[in-house]
Amino acid sequence: MNNTEYALIVAGGKGTRIKSKVPKQFLDINGLPVLMHTINAFYAYSSTIKVIVVLPEDDFALWNELCMLHDYRKPLRVVKGGESRFQSVRNGLAKIETDGLVAIHDGVRPLVSADIIAASFRLAAVHGSAVAAVRLKESIRMTDQDTTKAMDRSRFRLIQTPQTFQVSLIKQAYQLREDTTLTDDASVAERAGHMISLFEGSYENIKITTAEDLIIAEALLAARK
Amino acid sequence: MNNTEYALIVAGGKGTRIKSKVPKQFLDINGLPVLMHTINAFYAYSSTIKVIVVLPEDDFALWNELCMLHDYRKPLRVVKGGESRFQSVRNGLAKIETDGLVAIHDGVRPLVSADIIAASFRLAAVHGSAVAAVRLKESIRMTDQDTTKAMDRSRFRLIQTPQTFQVSLIKQAYQLREDTTLTDDASVAERAGHMISLFEGSYENIKITTAEDLIIAEALLAARK
Repeated sequence: MNNTEYALIVAGGKGTRIKSKVPKQFLDINGLPVLMHTINAFYAYSSTIKVIVVLPEDDFALWNELCMLHDYRKPLRVVKGGESRFQSVRNGLAKIETDGLVAIHDGVRPLVSADIIAASFRLAAVHGSAVAAVRLKESIRMTDQDTTKAMDRSRFRLIQTPQTFQVSLIKQAYQLREDTTLTDDASVAERAGHMISLFEGSYENIKITTAEDLIIAEALLAARK
Repeated sequence: MNNTEYALIVAGGKGTRIKSKVPKQFLDINGLPVLMHTINAFYAYSSTIKVIVVLPEDDFALWNELCMLHDYRKPLRVVKGGESRFQSVRNGLAKIETDGLVAIHDGVRPLVSADIIAASFRLAAVHGSAVAAVRLKESIRMTDQDTTKAMDRSRFRLIQTPQTFQVSLIKQAYQLREDTTLTDDASVAERAGHMISLFEGSYENIKITTAEDLIIAEALLAARK
């Protein structure tokens, strides 16, 4: 099996949930845009990993400016995003020409550790997939018509990224018709008939979605130093 | 209806998940123990609320020392906890002698806002219950024998506290036999046959469970100033 390792970093968000004109992957935390922290995490894991970043075409100019401003010279391939996350991932996968393993990762999860990335590649090499997941800290209820009912939280896992797959497997899964109810790569692979292997993610590996997440990410990054 | 408002703050944790000899409700964040921040949030909502704090008996001496150290003089009644959260809540409820409304709240959720507390009392006065809940930011999977399957995250809510009830309703619910699969007050009330009303909580209203949660809580508290 070809063991080339790719990181496909999806940074297509438009920043609508955070009150900011700048998409959240470009916001500065601790002196560097979120997306650069994310890319750096993959290079901290491996200096030879092949990094593909999917960005909305409208953001290419801003990204280039940020790279100049920060003298950011990490090798990476920038690919044009689509109308949806699904299309953005498909566009990114299309640029991978060999088989191997690809870690698909949210551009707005800058706190992913080298250990988690390593675990995802190690497990995906064995199982074909490796999806970071954590147990629930809180109780959970499911809506049921007009009401909700308590569920056994021990049966659920919150899903993070990286979601790492054998390239040929996930490329084939993304050839199927787009379904907007599939919110991550694992569910796309599952629909194509593949078993999904989970591994233990980290509560630190947050997705920056709301304004308070930026404060949280800054604090967690600062605490590492 | 009697409209006396109570806060029942449950601080029974033993700190096993955070590597610390001091239970996490007593750890210092931004100059004050977590539990004092939590109590202060209820007094910020109302100066006349009746606050009951449930603590393990072994921690009474430490709590008294902390109160002296911080010259902490907020009126509150300290009640001995039980062997489990269920028993601790039941012990606390037993000290409430009138009807009214009671907001049951985790001692380790110091970031609850006065607005959320107000909403919980307002809605519980109408519906008999009001439970803080938030939508999922991440995908979710449910375990199913040896595998897991993707679920529609829009159908789920993560449950926080306060969980506010009419006193007579929740007291009666806690008279039933203890069931260790019920992880919060809403599920206890539900088992007793009551409909559960949810309202919008806040992503800031975190429960301090792990070491990184302390860092997060400090950052969020500092950002408010």
